[in-house]
Amino acid sequence: MNKIITISREFGSGGRSIGQALADKLNVKCYDSLIIAETAKESGFTVDYVESQSEDTQGSGIFGWLAGNYYGDSNTHQIWNIQYDVIRDIASKGPCVIVGRCADYILHDFDNVLRVFIHASDEFREKRIVEEYGETDEDPLSRLKEKDKKRKAYYEFITGEEWGNAKNFDLALDTSTLGIDTCVDIIASVANKD
Amino acid sequence: MNKIITISREFGSGGRSIGQALADKLNVKCYDSLIIAETAKESGFTVDYVESQSEDTQGSGIFGWLAGNYYGDSNTHQIWNIQYDVIRDIASKGPCVIVGRCADYILHDFDNVLRVFIHASDEFREKRIVEEYGETDEDPLSRLKEKDKKRKAYYEFITGEEWGNAKNFDLALDTSTLGIDTCVDIIASVANKD
Repeated sequence: MNKIITISREFGSGGRSIGQALADKLNVKCYDSLIIAETAKESGFTVDYVESQSEDTQGSGIFGWLAGNYYGDSNTHQIWNIQYDVIRDIASKGPCVIVGRCADYILHDFDNVLRVFIHASDEFREKRIVEEYGETDEDPLSRLKEKDKKRKAYYEFITGEEWGNAKNFDLALDTSTLGIDTCVDIIASVANKD
Repeated sequence: MNKIITISREFGSGGRSIGQALADKLNVKCYDSLIIAETAKESGFTVDYVESQSEDTQGSGIFGWLAGNYYGDSNTHQIWNIQYDVIRDIASKGPCVIVGRCADYILHDFDNVLRVFIHASDEFREKRIVEEYGETDEDPLSRLKEKDKKRKAYYEFITGEEWGNAKNFDLALDTSTLGIDTCVDIIASVANKD
């Protein structure tokens, strides 16, 4: 298996679980929180701060970015630059799975990337974020909409591409209708070709 | 295999070939031009006319539609109504493959539909429409853009949904990176579950 599999996913669709299951099945590493930790280490910021800057174009995020162009590297800009390098460094080391982080965009010039988009119905995701993620503080649908809005804004701001456009991916799969296991099987079988 | 597989596709991406190969593999019928022929038979219009009305919201198409709401059924409206019934009738008879015709939308309330979107790079499609479809009269890229624009406009007008949005499909597959055979295998393996 010689592919770098990037998984872009809707919040609550099971993309992270798919990433881990794929990595286990294909005997490679799955990078998600590891990237954040590595970025934090290199940037000197805390893991929590790096995580909060990674999906936020609201408030200080986007303005910090814009300001950075005039006043020198803002925190967001610095974190992005480091994360960009961390991801490209990971990819250069060989086959792996990378979840989120606009990795599909960052690795645009690598020729062995399998770009996957994972999505699901609101109903499936609402249930999942409560049962699997323990998100019980606020109404699940509101939580979904909030995260969807942020993730979409961040992805579109970073990549200039439309979030959820099928044409940006080799495979786009609906976990609520196909099931997580079937999605893992599909991606693994494609990854194992060539 | 108990599914109705609907294939929405970009022009030149090989969706029709996939539909036929799938039908052969799953031992069911593939409906595409058959629907047009059936619609023509029932409407009294020629096959060519029905075909031209099926992807055209420009000129008489959309205005005919709007006019039909005030002045009684226009040709476009009539053809749509008949095609709608033809497709639902086909689907009610059992498992099959249906290519195009907004079938994913028409069968929205059927619970055994597998909704597939097939797309490919411009480069792949340009090559295909010349080599496979024999489209040599005009510049391939212009031909692609013209068909893309029409197909998108028609789909969005009919369904109110965004053409190419991954969330409207269980599976969205890129034939230029995965290959047509792999796409057939993926869809068939999913269709054969349950």
